[in-house]
Amino acid sequence: MTRTLHLNLFAYGRGHHEGAWRHTKAPRTPLTDFNYYRGLAELAEKGLFDSMFLADVLAGPRASGQPPANHLEPITLLSALAGVTRHIGLVATASTSYTEPFNLARQFASLDHISGGRVAWNVVTSWVNGAQANFGLDRLPTHAERYAKAFEYMEVVKGLWDSWADDAIVDDPTSGLYLRPERVRAIEHKGEHFRVRGPLNVPPGPQRHPLLFQAGSSADGQQFAARHAEAVFTAQPDLAAAQQFYASLKRHVVEAGRRPDSLVVMPGLSAVVASTDAEARLLLEELDELTSVQSGLEHLSTRFGGYDFSHLDLDTPLSVDDFPALGQIEAEKSRVQQYLQRVSRDRPTLRQLLRQLAGARGHFTLAGSPERIADAMQLWFESAAADGFNLMPPTLPNLLETFVDEVVPLLQRRGLFRRAYQQQTLRERYGLARPASQYFN
Amino acid sequence: MTRTLHLNLFAYGRGHHEGAWRHTKAPRTPLTDFNYYRGLAELAEKGLFDSMFLADVLAGPRASGQPPANHLEPITLLSALAGVTRHIGLVATASTSYTEPFNLARQFASLDHISGGRVAWNVVTSWVNGAQANFGLDRLPTHAERYAKAFEYMEVVKGLWDSWADDAIVDDPTSGLYLRPERVRAIEHKGEHFRVRGPLNVPPGPQRHPLLFQAGSSADGQQFAARHAEAVFTAQPDLAAAQQFYASLKRHVVEAGRRPDSLVVMPGLSAVVASTDAEARLLLEELDELTSVQSGLEHLSTRFGGYDFSHLDLDTPLSVDDFPALGQIEAEKSRVQQYLQRVSRDRPTLRQLLRQLAGARGHFTLAGSPERIADAMQLWFESAAADGFNLMPPTLPNLLETFVDEVVPLLQRRGLFRRAYQQQTLRERYGLARPASQYFN
Repeated sequence: MTRTLHLNLFAYGRGHHEGAWRHTKAPRTPLTDFNYYRGLAELAEKGLFDSMFLADVLAGPRASGQPPANHLEPITLLSALAGVTRHIGLVATASTSYTEPFNLARQFASLDHISGGRVAWNVVTSWVNGAQANFGLDRLPTHAERYAKAFEYMEVVKGLWDSWADDAIVDDPTSGLYLRPERVRAIEHKGEHFRVRGPLNVPPGPQRHPLLFQAGSSADGQQFAARHAEAVFTAQPDLAAAQQFYASLKRHVVEAGRRPDSLVVMPGLSAVVASTDAEARLLLEELDELTSVQSGLEHLSTRFGGYDFSHLDLDTPLSVDDFPALGQIEAEKSRVQQYLQRVSRDRPTLRQLLRQLAGARGHFTLAGSPERIADAMQLWFESAAADGFNLMPPTLPNLLETFVDEVVPLLQRRGLFRRAYQQQTLRERYGLARPASQYFN
Repeated sequence: MTRTLHLNLFAYGRGHHEGAWRHTKAPRTPLTDFNYYRGLAELAEKGLFDSMFLADVLAGPRASGQPPANHLEPITLLSALAGVTRHIGLVATASTSYTEPFNLARQFASLDHISGGRVAWNVVTSWVNGAQANFGLDRLPTHAERYAKAFEYMEVVKGLWDSWADDAIVDDPTSGLYLRPERVRAIEHKGEHFRVRGPLNVPPGPQRHPLLFQAGSSADGQQFAARHAEAVFTAQPDLAAAQQFYASLKRHVVEAGRRPDSLVVMPGLSAVVASTDAEARLLLEELDELTSVQSGLEHLSTRFGGYDFSHLDLDTPLSVDDFPALGQIEAEKSRVQQYLQRVSRDRPTLRQLLRQLAGARGHFTLAGSPERIADAMQLWFESAAADGFNLMPPTLPNLLETFVDEVVPLLQRRGLFRRAYQQQTLRERYGLARPASQYFN
């Protein structure tokens, strides 16, 4: 079978660019309106996307000059979208730090049934400082503590998803036997962080486990991905960095005893698409003009665990000494590291750095014609930098619509992308097997 | 305005009668199939029902000779139904004992937006022995402990729902102000069971608080209802008992400083409807024949916190000494009490008791023609026993369909029930006000 690329829509407010919500062409639909998200899902389905994805933050609102990524909660929103879509995969972010594993395993199993096998879980450990206070904790657990808990969490939820044999339900009205009790079992998990007897109270869905996405790119994050992830979202600023990450992650996967193609690597792509390169650059400039220093500083501070940058001069070149040491950051380590590399390599002023990050928070950003976008995607796909892309439209729904109408047909013509949906689960679409139960055959 | 009655559908497996799933006319659709529930919601919406409701148990499966109330998780399932229905209210059961209040407050707030103000929460403390082991606890919290935690839980979630003013979001592209930070605030809850800083990260929905249902009928349960509930599900075996409960609950509500009509009382009604009384009685007999002693014993044991009744002779009249003392029961106290009253009053044999409970677990059960059913509903409604009914069709979808086609038109003709939906929130439909924020005006 020819290798073709995967496309995931990262739905995010009115778009990933900080200035998107202020653009004259931005819709004014409230971001609490279900029909807004329904429209995005329908567009992505029209574009034959593999899946759509919602990020999540368990605190906030944090900024006054910027809509949040989403006002609505991912699992409820994606469940509602499951009812009104047929094909698109539904990727919900949920945290291993702040949700009871039994509840989370159950909601994903339930949504797998409801969606006919279209659910995926973006596993996060929640790096935002502040969330812990909504869950009775005095301080943000350290990066290492969060990952230790996440590893145990995965054991629990995989145990729960495996706690029923596929043939447990008999549903035989004649004999009066509904369920064979010997085909369902407790998991009796007793670990450092969790004690969960089980079984789950939802039978296995079409995929048994939701497809497992993950986005950690730190050392711990890559270890976690190598063990558990089946698809990885990653922020890579350019081709060389993406190739290096791709090789490193696939190596980890192989070292963990898995096949390299059992994990799909999906770098973020923020594509400012217009009829010509010049028009696209003009649009990006318009968006850049709509950003504010204050919003940029709020974002930067959040990324650095609450550190205050407001004393720095906006127009003096930065050095890494202006930032807290990496070892002190308990937030998303890999992204912070990427920002610091950018600073030490390019010596931007604070104003320039904020402007660079306003486009897509460090993700690969490209402004150009449909051909230029398709060329870049093909290059990354064919030179071991990506198995697909996490599309992060700078404005929504506009630049998603343009992408679907102008870029997708080019990818199809080049044989890089599907021309129709098959009837299949999301796992099958991503080329991944349905896990067998660890307890039953 | 004329007082009219409320109708809620209690969706439960293939029906509330223990024999329903084995009946020849029962559908064979798997109970994990979303379309099964979609069909029920559409039928209830055709019948202009106020709402539909899903129970929940956080453990299981418990019985092999009986499908569970639901294989799917209520919040995900009702979210999906929100996408494909327009009017029906969506009542999700969720537990104050086993879910982080921040997560639960957020999912309900999100679903309120998604559904356009149609969400309700059936607040439960989870009495089933076994659930605690899925959440790291060694023993089932006592009835009193569960209620103490539930009272604090309500403070937290109401605080979170109140943490935004309605005008917090400005969304002004010209000024660049998305949100007025002074119109959102932390709640800084520090209690015995929970510490939650807040604010919530979802703005207030059309109803601000979900409509609050509750089903506890014990002394603690009635105190809780008087303080917090806006609608109460209750199991009442006959008119006299229902009248007594109705008066008692309304008195508690008034004592709590609320208006009596700020709480809607909804006894369960299990209606075996057929063209004639004789046909209806025949259908009930058919269903009774499909029950088994083993399933009945499993149910009874669960209700009594795991107590084993299998040593008792099936055909000897029971006495209350055959049961554990009420003070030792930490499960659902009011239902257990009702069962014990039945035993001491009627002295049934174990076989007879199981048969009586197989119909609807102690709820009011009536077999008859559409006229007989409508007469009983009118009598209860007009003699201070009910403000509406929690309809528990013995078989699903069949006896729901019959009810919608045959009983609803009679209620309409008598001026007891609506002839069309209004465009309104579920709160408005139940005659209840949208709560103001306790923090903002």
